[in-house]
Amino acid sequence: MQRNDDAPRHGGGLAAASARYGIAVADWLDLSTGINPLPYPAAPLELSADTRLPDPAALAKLIETARTAYDVSAAASIVPVPGSDLGLRLLPLLVPAARVSILAPTYSGHGEAWSAAGHHVTAIDRLEAAAGADVVVLANPNNPDGRRHAPATIGAAAAALPPHGLMVVDEAFCDLEPALSVARVLDDPRIVVLRSFGKFYGLAGLRLGFVLGRGAAVQRLRGLVGDWPLSGAAITIGTAALADLGWQERTRRRLAASRAQLDDLLAQHGLSVAGGTDLFRLVRVGDNQGLHRHLAEMGIWTRVFADIPGAIRFGLPPGDGFGRLDAALGRIRTRGRS
Amino acid sequence: MQRNDDAPRHGGGLAAASARYGIAVADWLDLSTGINPLPYPAAPLELSADTRLPDPAALAKLIETARTAYDVSAAASIVPVPGSDLGLRLLPLLVPAARVSILAPTYSGHGEAWSAAGHHVTAIDRLEAAAGADVVVLANPNNPDGRRHAPATIGAAAAALPPHGLMVVDEAFCDLEPALSVARVLDDPRIVVLRSFGKFYGLAGLRLGFVLGRGAAVQRLRGLVGDWPLSGAAITIGTAALADLGWQERTRRRLAASRAQLDDLLAQHGLSVAGGTDLFRLVRVGDNQGLHRHLAEMGIWTRVFADIPGAIRFGLPPGDGFGRLDAALGRIRTRGRS
Repeated sequence: MQRNDDAPRHGGGLAAASARYGIAVADWLDLSTGINPLPYPAAPLELSADTRLPDPAALAKLIETARTAYDVSAAASIVPVPGSDLGLRLLPLLVPAARVSILAPTYSGHGEAWSAAGHHVTAIDRLEAAAGADVVVLANPNNPDGRRHAPATIGAAAAALPPHGLMVVDEAFCDLEPALSVARVLDDPRIVVLRSFGKFYGLAGLRLGFVLGRGAAVQRLRGLVGDWPLSGAAITIGTAALADLGWQERTRRRLAASRAQLDDLLAQHGLSVAGGTDLFRLVRVGDNQGLHRHLAEMGIWTRVFADIPGAIRFGLPPGDGFGRLDAALGRIRTRGRS
Repeated sequence: MQRNDDAPRHGGGLAAASARYGIAVADWLDLSTGINPLPYPAAPLELSADTRLPDPAALAKLIETARTAYDVSAAASIVPVPGSDLGLRLLPLLVPAARVSILAPTYSGHGEAWSAAGHHVTAIDRLEAAAGADVVVLANPNNPDGRRHAPATIGAAAAALPPHGLMVVDEAFCDLEPALSVARVLDDPRIVVLRSFGKFYGLAGLRLGFVLGRGAAVQRLRGLVGDWPLSGAAITIGTAALADLGWQERTRRRLAASRAQLDDLLAQHGLSVAGGTDLFRLVRVGDNQGLHRHLAEMGIWTRVFADIPGAIRFGLPPGDGFGRLDAALGRIRTRGRS
């Protein structure tokens, strides 16, 4: 019953969904990602921002703005990358052959990257099972289930690693809950933190992320990405958005309210949330593939996962998307009863 | 006499020049790079291009457009990268320890990248001196001296490499002279071609480039960069510009005319061009550092090189920049005589 194209590798990819369901790209309500539907209101980009090579001074200012925004230890380096996805894919190339334990289920790119680089990768279901690993990878809060680890727990796990070890903490959704971040306790050179700009700021297509840490792998990464790792637009918009503490605080409140509204709506249709963050909710149902397809037929694109039985993930709808989701779930219930 | 900051690592970096010479960034005539001063006239970017993750279908269309624009062999893969600079920095991580010969002088990033990855790097002054190397790196046409190699010569040199060898051809300035490209003869899996979008199209800050080839290193690179290597803006603008054959042809003619105008102007001031392309001219003078400083004091930013005695490089001025360069060179001659 489960077909491969019902569990695509990632969210998004509306062109393929369009071709399959005969619905124009512009007509979809895309709930397949965990990207803020209310993007940071940057001014339309003047192309002049991208004619010259970005100036090193502008990049340096972005880095210092990120240091304040993420509250990064003074001892740690901040490496800008064109998307945290590329950052996490480069890290495995910069460390010697290692036994890698990945706290799963989580973002599939981690396992792909460490395996492709020739490391020995094991999926583990709890942090304690990482004993004997050189490298541990976890996301905090985790995608798609929202599992969380206290910074002290992560610090202790890092301290238990061998001296050459690495604790990779993917904080792609940590803007929602800054208290969870280990960015401010990066004294242990074994800890490497990945931050994603696009999700919380709603600008995933800008390709901007950061790798934080004070160990050798982060230093090597800094050299690797060269002098122009980012577009002029990413530097300009990133600097403005990371400095805009008021927008960040308002956005946290708005997303929390939207998340509560989504949970209520799902509950009204008998769908209970098993976990998530304020940018996505994971629901467990008997027939997740069927629900995904029914919603897709009505132009609502959700995400199912090959490795989590019964799981379907809903991103936050924009304001005008709640009514449409409500109506679609209502029709499915009616259909199910008839 | 030669100071480090007179020979910066790259062109650009106007903020540092401003701080040093007390001239506002906006007031410089920047001739320090080889970037087209007449950028592709893309419409101002709607931020909506960057809210979602770029769709894989849009990326696939860009790749096919690049295949036509660069006339790439059907057998070769095309890997999109956020700037060819990152592409050339990643390649050394994807091949086993090698003896690398780099045809010098050339872009410094090549040597930095292969050395940082632990390979044994030698600078050579002619292609024949590469005997015994596993990897050969050359730029065609070369920056900064405009040295050229016929495609057949490059093909023969690749064929002389060991089976695991690599011939890395940096074609960053090849849009100006498409006949020089080896993109259409990529049957030898040892040849890897780097293409840069930003120079010819005048959009260096967009960060877009391609790595072409059919060998194992290119295949590994394709996996490494993941599903979202480019910004939405790079995909949208890149696809439009690479398909615009009329603009490309007009731009080649305009740049050739501007280059001839620049050569005339330099000759009128006793400066003869030793080489270059239609986007930059290399001049040899007795005191290149002095000329660079004098021009900088008048707000004109050129580029000198630590490893080429007497060399100073002029990028193409925009239309209104010729008069200013003329006046500045005139003042220097007058001053020199007084």
